[in-house]
Amino acid sequence: MKGYSKHYYTEFAFADCNAVLKALQPIFQEQGMTETVHNWEDHGYLATYIKKNGSFANLRIHPHGLVLVDLQSYSDCTKGREEVDQLLNKIEERMKELFHGNIKRVKRLPAILRGDVIDRYWPTADGRLVEYDIDEVVYDEDSPFQNIKILHSKQFGNILILSGDVNLAESDLAYTQAIMGSGKEDYTGKEVLILGGGDGASNIDQMVIDGCKKYMRKTCGDVLDNLNGECYQVLIEDCIPVLKRYAKEGRMFDYVINDLTAVPISTSPEEDSTWEFLRLILDLSMKVLKQDGKYFTQGNCINLTDALTLYEEQLGRLYCPVEFSKETVCVPSYMELYPYKLKKSGECVLINQASLACLEVMNS
Amino acid sequence: MKGYSKHYYTEFAFADCNAVLKALQPIFQEQGMTETVHNWEDHGYLATYIKKNGSFANLRIHPHGLVLVDLQSYSDCTKGREEVDQLLNKIEERMKELFHGNIKRVKRLPAILRGDVIDRYWPTADGRLVEYDIDEVVYDEDSPFQNIKILHSKQFGNILILSGDVNLAESDLAYTQAIMGSGKEDYTGKEVLILGGGDGASNIDQMVIDGCKKYMRKTCGDVLDNLNGECYQVLIEDCIPVLKRYAKEGRMFDYVINDLTAVPISTSPEEDSTWEFLRLILDLSMKVLKQDGKYFTQGNCINLTDALTLYEEQLGRLYCPVEFSKETVCVPSYMELYPYKLKKSGECVLINQASLACLEVMNS
Repeated sequence: MKGYSKHYYTEFAFADCNAVLKALQPIFQEQGMTETVHNWEDHGYLATYIKKNGSFANLRIHPHGLVLVDLQSYSDCTKGREEVDQLLNKIEERMKELFHGNIKRVKRLPAILRGDVIDRYWPTADGRLVEYDIDEVVYDEDSPFQNIKILHSKQFGNILILSGDVNLAESDLAYTQAIMGSGKEDYTGKEVLILGGGDGASNIDQMVIDGCKKYMRKTCGDVLDNLNGECYQVLIEDCIPVLKRYAKEGRMFDYVINDLTAVPISTSPEEDSTWEFLRLILDLSMKVLKQDGKYFTQGNCINLTDALTLYEEQLGRLYCPVEFSKETVCVPSYMELYPYKLKKSGECVLINQASLACLEVMNS
Repeated sequence: MKGYSKHYYTEFAFADCNAVLKALQPIFQEQGMTETVHNWEDHGYLATYIKKNGSFANLRIHPHGLVLVDLQSYSDCTKGREEVDQLLNKIEERMKELFHGNIKRVKRLPAILRGDVIDRYWPTADGRLVEYDIDEVVYDEDSPFQNIKILHSKQFGNILILSGDVNLAESDLAYTQAIMGSGKEDYTGKEVLILGGGDGASNIDQMVIDGCKKYMRKTCGDVLDNLNGECYQVLIEDCIPVLKRYAKEGRMFDYVINDLTAVPISTSPEEDSTWEFLRLILDLSMKVLKQDGKYFTQGNCINLTDALTLYEEQLGRLYCPVEFSKETVCVPSYMELYPYKLKKSGECVLINQASLACLEVMNS
């Protein structure tokens, strides 16, 4: 099930709307398309051309010299694509004739496919439209918490997408490296507490684990086959009571790595419960972190400056003073840059992803 | 000058087209939009809704359960965006009522802006639609060879775009590192010949140099201020006669770095002159490369497997036998993975970009 739409535009210094319409009409009519024209007088024309096979075209002529052409058909095939390209070539030629080559800009955008089995459009954290090279739906399930998709990208490998947000792909070792301190930490003999980890580390959602165990093995290895290993234990439960218990028992860690959620995009920390959650996690984490311990976390897309600034402000409100530093890394599948790191005493690094950000905190 | 269009769709197990049309009509009519309906009988409906201010909507109802809504207006403002969101909310609600929540998928795509001063859409090498966070046109000139744009991206910094192809951004040190051998080479006291280099190294197009010298200083530093330095010389001329002259004079290099052009996408090497150019460059480069010399070059997007395979085949046709290896790196601003490297005697590395590819060749 598909809806193929192709978008095109040209621009002129000045357009006589009627002349443009008269020049382009024959091109559509030659295709056996029937025309309906709306004339706004002061806003130009909309001409709609309809073909018997269910496809149609919109020709929107703006009086200040912008001409937009949208073509939509139900199926997408090589022959159809060629026909569309030929039609656009003809329009371009006719326009160049009409304006004696005096055209400011001509642009054809790649076609958009809607309603296909495979959805290739997963906007970035800052809301930009990006098309992925997805060629297979590997896993698609609804858990009580979220929709879980694992889609295969030709270049990024399997990608985990939770409720529409790209979480991690097999290409994204850079993310894991950054949130572990960019190779500068020696974890030998250290106690490490990892919160979250959509890549198949501990997560409250058993169905994410199930999907990752099977289809994200390049990221999680065999760690999820047995939840208890020689030097690790995976707990599938809410981390808040666990943190509270550890704090009460006085159990302390050298490192806390918070990979639970990105910094919220909302910039109303008093109203948004995600911010409250984030502060609670930070406070509890500081309680279980040794005096010279480090806390690493992710930020969000580097463009979300308001949200990132706000996050840094939250760090000043912790019960214990911390310093932080930040680092920006490029996470291939995010198609954007991203940061964070915190050090309890010392520095607190916000990894901004170029798309991963890191927060490293030290107690002081 | 802008054309703002917003795209939306829902999907159902089965749609009674007429029922959908009847349910959604009032939503558009409440907006004071006038309706024109086309009924294909066997292909569903197209309803066009026109507003007095020049904006319009297309409602395309397919009989197999795909409903597409496209909204288009001339200007883009916060109020307009909110109205569009409200309209889409109402459509979604009404559809859920009609189908008792039995909807397979609902998706809203980020709006597309056409005809704006800033063009944010620069498709990837494999033809995918991606939107960049461009906020400024820094440089835009036509040279006798190409259109040269330097656009500012919030996250990638200044981006050099040659005739619509993203060449390099200030964020893309990974590209330069890969094409120089990923930090594994010791260039001390070595003779290096660099061909091309859109980042402001030698290039036949003086206007690219002019733009880069001024606006891509994070990538080219002060190298272009003086074309002759203590240990380098920049020649702004066609590299083919230069290579021929060097070959005739017997001038030899330890390294040849070819950053002229990506591997052509066309897979008809016999017909495409770019392939011929590429073979000529390779042959001439081998002639000026010392016996244990290395040749580095870029490939193209890792998804263009046919073109990359063909390139590797060309390496087998060189007058001297070479071995090669390849490497894939992520070039942030390319938003795709990309490879190449050749070693004259030894290995020949194709750097596939994740988006840079490298070819390292050694004489043998």
